Formats: sequence, structure tokens, C-alpha cells
Amino acid sequence: MTQRRDQTEQTRFERGSAKLAEVDGKAGAEVVEPLGDLGRYIVEFAFGDIYSRESLSLRDRELATVAALTVMGGREPQLKVHIGAALNVGMAEEEIEETIIQTVPYAGFPTAINAMNVFKEVLAQTENE
Amino acid sequence: MTQRRDQTEQTRFERGSAKLAEVDGKAGAEVVEPLGDLGRYIVEFAFGDIYSRESLSLRDRELATVAALTVMGGREPQLKVHIGAALNVGMAEEEIEETIIQTVPYAGFPTAINAMNVFKEVLAQTENE
Amino acid sequence: MTQRRDQTEQTRFERGSAKLAEVDGKAGAEVVEPLGDLGRYIVEFAFGDIYSRESLSLRDRELATVAALTVMGGREPQLKVHIGAALNVGMAEEEIEETIIQTVPYAGFPTAINAMNVFKEVLAQTENE
Amino acid sequence: MTQRRDQTEQTRFERGSAKLAEVDGKAGAEVVEPLGDLGRYIVEFAFGDIYSRESLSLRDRELATVAALTVMGGREPQLKVHIGAALNVGMAEEEIEETIIQTVPYAGFPTAINAMNVFKEVLAQTENE
Amino acid sequence: MTQRRDQTEQTRFERGSAKLAEVDGKAGAEVVEPLGDLGRYIVEFAFGDIYSRESLSLRDRELATVAALTVMGGREPQLKVHIGAALNVGMAEEEIEETIIQTVPYAGFPTAINAMNVFKEVLAQTENE
Amino acid sequence: MTQRRDQTEQTRFERGSAKLAEVDGKAGAEVVEPLGDLGRYIVEFAFGDIYSRESLSLRDRELATVAALTVMGGREPQLKVHIGAALNVGMAEEEIEETIIQTVPYAGFPTAINAMNVFKEVLAQTENE
Repeated sequence: MTQRRDQTEQTRFERGSAKLAEVDGKAGAEVVEPLGDLGRYIVEFAFGDIYSRESLSLRDRELATVAALTVMGGREPQLKVHIGAALNVGMAEEEIEETIIQTVPYAGFPTAINAMNVFKEVLAQTENE
Repeated sequence: MTQRRDQTEQTRFERGSAKLAEVDGKAGAEVVEPLGDLGRYIVEFAFGDIYSRESLSLRDRELATVAALTVMGGREPQLKVHIGAALNVGMAEEEIEETIIQTVPYAGFPTAINAMNVFKEVLAQTENE
Repeated sequence: MTQRRDQTEQTRFERGSAKLAEVDGKAGAEVVEPLGDLGRYIVEFAFGDIYSRESLSLRDRELATVAALTVMGGREPQLKVHIGAALNVGMAEEEIEETIIQTVPYAGFPTAINAMNVFKEVLAQTENE
Repeated sequence: MTQRRDQTEQTRFERGSAKLAEVDGKAGAEVVEPLGDLGRYIVEFAFGDIYSRESLSLRDRELATVAALTVMGGREPQLKVHIGAALNVGMAEEEIEETIIQTVPYAGFPTAINAMNVFKEVLAQTENE
Repeated sequence: MTQRRDQTEQTRFERGSAKLAEVDGKAGAEVVEPLGDLGRYIVEFAFGDIYSRESLSLRDRELATVAALTVMGGREPQLKVHIGAALNVGMAEEEIEETIIQTVPYAGFPTAINAMNVFKEVLAQTENE
Repeated sequence: MTQRRDQTEQTRFERGSAKLAEVDGKAGAEVVEPLGDLGRYIVEFAFGDIYSRESLSLRDRELATVAALTVMGGREPQLKVHIGAALNVGMAEEEIEETIIQTVPYAGFPTAINAMNVFKEVLAQTENE
């Protein structure tokens, strides 16, 4: 109980900011900062709470996230950030491509094609840096 | 080229059936058999082609699949089969629970709640066997 | 202009009711009647306006509707009514099965499996009547 | 009955056009006019029928619409029009932002981020006028 | 800053629990308790953070939530809880029905029909209590 | 059995390529070629298997596909290719427009508006060629 009292909101925001930087590099902060309270919740809840949990590695979390964002469709800006994050936390390029291919039996070709094109954009940008 | 010529339809079906058994145990065959040609494509394409690829382990494929089926919603019967499959190919129970929790920032609580209830059903059935 | 003035609300409702009966038989009216104003709009707008248009046969309209309801997922009660309607307006059983199979490359296996199971339910009911 | 006979199609279109102008200003008409019959149904059904109903204020209708278009994703052009409409019928800017934030627990961050960016675009355009 | 340090996790959970009880009555706690950490996040984040914000009344939050859950489809168990919540925080029955009807132009009839049937279930249960 | 053994992967790819050319003209190959293995599966499975089946004409398959891609939303690049394909395999322009209008009662106006705008783009490009 006393332990939990020590986890103040401030701590969640700090822990989330550090986790966001670890996962997304500077791309994450750029998405989050202009979003006001919505951005603060992304830092506190998505990164300070969820990504800071144990039981699943960051690499596994991004694998799940790339699969999820691919199949929902229409989340291409977020998919782009998370493909960058997946590379960042240790997924090999061919594992990301393979994750996109794995979604085909469950959500069909169109969302996989759109995700593959986002993946290629990320690779092209990474090579130019 | 000659190698590919040897991969006949029959081979894809056989390879897919073996992979389906490896991934889903008998639950997969029970879903697939009454489905006629649709079931044959699940065996040949989903399992003979996609699940038989390299670059991603069966455990990682099921992690991606559980995430994907969770966030789309309305695919509970398939989610049930794939939570069973995830346990089968080596995901720990807490990794599956964690994968469902990881979807919350991307798709919200309702689909995660529904997936968690499916996960509990699978666990209850497994314990009763 | 004068022609359109003659198309009163009453006429749209009557035209829609006749069209609903032509398309869905009694199953449509059973769905619509308990729904109050929502049911009235289904009769007036969906059937009085849209289904009463030219340029596409009722059979083609149901083919499009079965495909649409299949891929969206979670619309099984409506899919059931429209598979019955499709049989009613002249689609052969194997054409309906084929329409469901045609959705696989675009929306994956899970929604097609669910639709195929609904299709089998409709066939089983039809045979028992 | 006689009252309903007086509500001819022409009347629905006229009532819908007036309601569309009240809700969306000129932005609505610009979307609708190039769409032919599809545009006519938007005027007659969406605005002549639904938006002309009682029991819910125009402000509440736009609150519901902004929430709905946000969570479905991939409807950004329509969301833009309806955020403009929401401002038009009396929602405060911070109420619109708050409605977008309210969707996060139900549909996750990605669709809320996309909606927030659309909201900012609308505000930037409004300020420039 | 010092003010925020006072908002410990414990406080978020307590504030969320109180808000959940205010919004959902006992139905909310029944959904949340068996869900472990997932349930804790619903209390802390959805209710302790989001529902506890200002700028939008609880009634408006439920209006937005009913619209959102209706159009996504396949979230019927959650829709049921939130229709109960909407009644709880002051939406009139006909306002809830009207919110469902308002989604038709944006998401079509099938999800509205399913929501209307959930709404009727809730009314029938309420009357029997 | 011997017949099936003759249908090697090579044959599926060749049959799929021919079917893709028949359905989509050169637009299909342009989408598929840069996609690596994902593109190969589109050729082999979507076109070599599914589109090569009997029981439904190519025209009916594209009618179903246009309806499916319209209602899912966020698949505009694929919808564009398949509206071109629909024209290619014999759908009249007004039948395509009508198919889009037919989706309105099932998925609402926003996806129909987006599809109609894609349809107009395709027509404008076709006229300029």
C-alpha cells in the first residue's frame, strides 16, 4: 500500500516518458507533445502503465501492436510510428514483414498491402538517415 | 523452379494439415472439416502456406493472431481456437493475458474484456480436461 | 416535379412494405415491426427508396448485401435475414456460398467462417419447413 | 394520415436542405451536391428525416456523430464536416475535444489522435476565415 | 506540481471506484472485479482519469459512449452496461432510443437494430426489478 | 488425385497471373509486383484459387468485392483497383454507382461517399486515357 502511494501521477508520467523514449525514440515524443491531455494519457497510461508491465518483452509488445494496427485499417500514421518502434526494440526487418503477412488469413490482403507500404516507407526513411 | 513444381496442391494440403495439427491440435480440424472448400483453403493457404513460412516462430504467429482477433471484435469463436493454439505452441498463460492487455491502448477496453472472457473460458475448459 | 409530389410518405411506406415482402418474405416484417420508428425507416428508406431503385436487380442487391454483412462481422442476425432474402430473389445456394468464399481475400477467414455457419443454419431451417 | 400525405418527397428534400444548412452551413451543401442521388438521400433521409426528429437537440446529435465517426476510423472527411457542424450548433471547442478524449477507453488512442488532428485542422481553418 | 504528487495511484483507484459506482451502479463493479489488472485499469484510467474530467457532463459522456459502442458493433455486452449507465446519469429513455437512431446515417441499420434490441432488454430488466 | 498433383505451385501462379490480367489489366500487376511474397500470395491464392473458381462470374465477384471494400472503409487504394476491375469485367458504370448506393442501409453514408469519390476518380482517369 505504502509502495503504491509512492507511485504518484508524476512518477507515472516520468516512467511513461522514459519508456516512450526507449520504445519510440524521438518519434513518439513528436506525436505526443502537441496532443495536450490526450498526449499526457498516452505517456501515463499507454507507456507508464501498459508498456511498463512485465510478462511480455517490448519486442513482443510491438509485434502485437503491429498486428493490431495492421488489421484495424485506417491507423496508418500510428502503424508507421510502431513499425519504427518495432525496429527500435529489436524486431528484425523480416520479422516485421512476416508479422504483416501473418495477418492475411485473419484480415485479408488490403490491410496487409497498406501495412507493407507503410513498412517500406519506414525502411526508405531509415536508410536515408 | 523444379523444386516448386514438386510442391503440388496435394503437398500443400498435407503440409497444411500437419501444421494445423501441430498448432491447434484437434480443435482446428473440427472447425475446418465441415467447411468444405472454405475449410480446404484454411488448410492449404493459412496453414500450408502462411504458418509454414520461416522468419517467425509459431509462438510469435499466435501472439500476432491473438492480438489481431482481439482488436477486430466479433471474431470470438476464432479467438477461442487461437488462444488454445497459443497455449499449444508454448505461450504462457500470463503472456496471453498480457497480449490482450497490450491491445487496450490501440483498441480500447470492450474488445479486451471480450477477449479476456474468452481466455477464461479456454482456461476453464483446459482445467476440466 | 409534380410526379415527385405524388410520392408521399405514405407511398414510400407502402412501396417499401411491398418490396420488403418481395425480398424477405415474412422474415423481414418480423424484424421490422417491433422496432418502432427505426423499423419504419428500414421500410421507407432501405426498401421504399434504395431497394426500389433500378439499375441493379434484387438478386444483385442481395449479392452485394451478403458480401457487405459478411465482411463487417458482428452483423450475424442481419446476415441470416439477407441470406434468406438472397435465396428468395433467385440466388442459387452455391452462388451464396461462393459469395462468402469471395470475401476471404478481402476480409480473411474468420468472418467467412461465421457467415458460412449462418448460411448452413438458414439451409437447415429451410429444409425443415 | 392526411398530415403524412402532405409530407411529399419534395417536402422532405426542402426540409432536409434547410436542416443541412442549419447544421453544416455551406460545407454540407458542398459535400452533398456533387453526389447525385447519394447526395439527395443524405438531404432527404439523414437531414430531412433523422436530423429533423425531436427528442434530441442538434448539439446532442453532433456530439453523438463526432463520437461515432471518431471510433469507426477512416471517416476523416466526414468527421471534419461534422466537427464544423458541432461548432455551428453550439458545442464549445473544449466539449468537442472532450468528446474525442471520451472515446479513448472504448476505441483506443489511434482513432482519437486522428480525430484530434482533424479537430485542429478545423480550428486552424476557422481562425483563418 | 505538489498538487499532482498528491494524486497517488491509490487515489486514482478510489476516485475511479466512486465514479464507476456513480455512473454504472453495481453493474459496473460486477464487470470489473473478475478482470484482474484489466479491471483495475478500467477503474483507474477509464473512470479515475477520463470520466472524472470536467468539460462534459456524465450524461453527455454516456451519450457519446452509447453512440460509439453502437456503431462499432460486436460490443453488445458493454453497450448493455452503458445503456444502464445512461439511464442512471439522467438520459431519458427516448433520448437513448434517439441516439441509436442518430447513428443510422453514419453506420447503417444493422448496428442500430442490434443496439435497439439491447436497449429493449435493458428496459425489460429495469421494469422487472 | 493425379489431376490435383498436376496443379503445382507454378501452375497456380501462372493461372493466377492470367486471371489477374483478365480482371485488373495492368493495374493489378503494378500493385502486386513490388510486394514480394505478399504479392505472390495475391496472385496464387486470390486470383489462382478464388477468382479461378466457378459458380460466380467475374462480374459478380467484382460486384461483391466493391461492396465489401466500400463498407470496411480505409481500403480506398484497393477499392480504386477493383472499381477499375469491375468496369473491365463488364459492370456498367451505373451498376457500380448502384452497388455503392446499395451499401448505405448497411454501413451508412460516410463509406459510400468515400467510395463514390473513388469511383469518380476512376472515371476521370479512364476518360483521360
